[in-house]
Amino acid sequence: MRVRYSFADVSALTETGPGCFAADVHPEWTIGGKPNGGYLLGMMARAAVRVGAHSDVIAASAHYLRSPEPGPVVVQAELLRQGRSTSQVRAIMLQDDQACVEALVTVSEIRDAAAYWDKGMPFAGDARYEDCVQLIADTPMGIRVAIMDQVIVRVDPVTAGFTVGQPAGRGELRGWLALPEDQNFDPCSLLFALDSFPPATFDIEFAGWVPTLELTCYVRALPAPGPVRVVQRATVVADRRVDEACFVWDSTGRLVAQGTQLAGIRLGG
Amino acid sequence: MRVRYSFADVSALTETGPGCFAADVHPEWTIGGKPNGGYLLGMMARAAVRVGAHSDVIAASAHYLRSPEPGPVVVQAELLRQGRSTSQVRAIMLQDDQACVEALVTVSEIRDAAAYWDKGMPFAGDARYEDCVQLIADTPMGIRVAIMDQVIVRVDPVTAGFTVGQPAGRGELRGWLALPEDQNFDPCSLLFALDSFPPATFDIEFAGWVPTLELTCYVRALPAPGPVRVVQRATVVADRRVDEACFVWDSTGRLVAQGTQLAGIRLGG
Repeated sequence: MRVRYSFADVSALTETGPGCFAADVHPEWTIGGKPNGGYLLGMMARAAVRVGAHSDVIAASAHYLRSPEPGPVVVQAELLRQGRSTSQVRAIMLQDDQACVEALVTVSEIRDAAAYWDKGMPFAGDARYEDCVQLIADTPMGIRVAIMDQVIVRVDPVTAGFTVGQPAGRGELRGWLALPEDQNFDPCSLLFALDSFPPATFDIEFAGWVPTLELTCYVRALPAPGPVRVVQRATVVADRRVDEACFVWDSTGRLVAQGTQLAGIRLGG
Repeated sequence: MRVRYSFADVSALTETGPGCFAADVHPEWTIGGKPNGGYLLGMMARAAVRVGAHSDVIAASAHYLRSPEPGPVVVQAELLRQGRSTSQVRAIMLQDDQACVEALVTVSEIRDAAAYWDKGMPFAGDARYEDCVQLIADTPMGIRVAIMDQVIVRVDPVTAGFTVGQPAGRGELRGWLALPEDQNFDPCSLLFALDSFPPATFDIEFAGWVPTLELTCYVRALPAPGPVRVVQRATVVADRRVDEACFVWDSTGRLVAQGTQLAGIRLGG
């Protein structure tokens, strides 16, 4: 039986000085041995909240310099401005004194208010959790996606053609995400949710490793307990780069987070 | 006759030390006296390119701390990592020694290659430039949008109902943007293009000042000469914040830039 390590555990921080935190990148929250980028940003956002004057991350933008290896890292968080309703924090993740990820985080308070207008949302999908296809860690593509033994990613059968070599060509994956031991989501783990799905380009053509260059996340509401619905979709593949937009809804159907990323890709030469 | 100040002029930098630049925020590139956020990010990206080892901004993320006033500012740019194909830069805009905007910028080389796949693009609109409605600086809403006397923003009549108090309720504005004196776009001025349109929420309900908290921009191709098509649309208004996605196509119909922003808004209490 697999041991599952909770998001709270794998993103835990130990304060070692003012705005300085020690942490461990977990070897099981990885894809082909490399840590998931949203997991790293979630860990950095936890540091940002610790130094900011507000409780919830509402916007986080990370630029990835080099991938840290699983193991010890340092997160430095500096309060850039403390305002009445929002504060801004710079967070840097280092390993062996080398910067690996730098991020900007805006923190505020998220109120439990219904959306005023939400007609711009894409179709979230209607497949039930139990009718979706669970992705496995030992893929036929040869890369071990260890994180799939930690979290549960279930893909809507309509967009799961890539798992049997038959992508639909729409550049969109839909489905569900659950954390280990059914832990509930919070704003920091929602940043992970926004990078938890395989590249939407798998629904176009398999292209191996798709390294994230930039990831921006917005948290729009506090999530209800339970798994979240995820839609991940690509707009354009060009010049060896792809953008992806991601939308996350909680179990009550409320949009709770959204993000975009720019990634490198080996498609189109 | 109005004097128009080119983007190159209003974003000009004078190097005063290593990675340190003096600049002037132009009083005419403003909305209600406040500088446009995309204009400020374009200026910061110019500084990033000067210290990076690559020629083109491909990703830029800004968190806005406080709005600078028109007048002198300092831009500090620090190279975080220099790679073979991409480099990352931190850029900070200060006024009177106070940080106003902090941004992360990834620079690379953009090759003139056709898109490999672009089926994820939204509808760009089909209204001709000359059939669109030009926005004016002296609005009936009482705020002087001085920048509309500098650049030309023309809105597709289908989405221009807000100009006569009849928003369509779709949360989307489409149209065209031209720079002063028909100056051509480049990657830095495309960052401005991604924040040049009025808030997409004007197509829902007028809500006054919609201050940008975070703006993320991706530049996907080098733009052909001429004006660009712009689509600006909102997904969700909730908890006094709105997200907007923006897409920019050049005159040949190629997607050249895309962005998202999170902004404050006074709708829904």
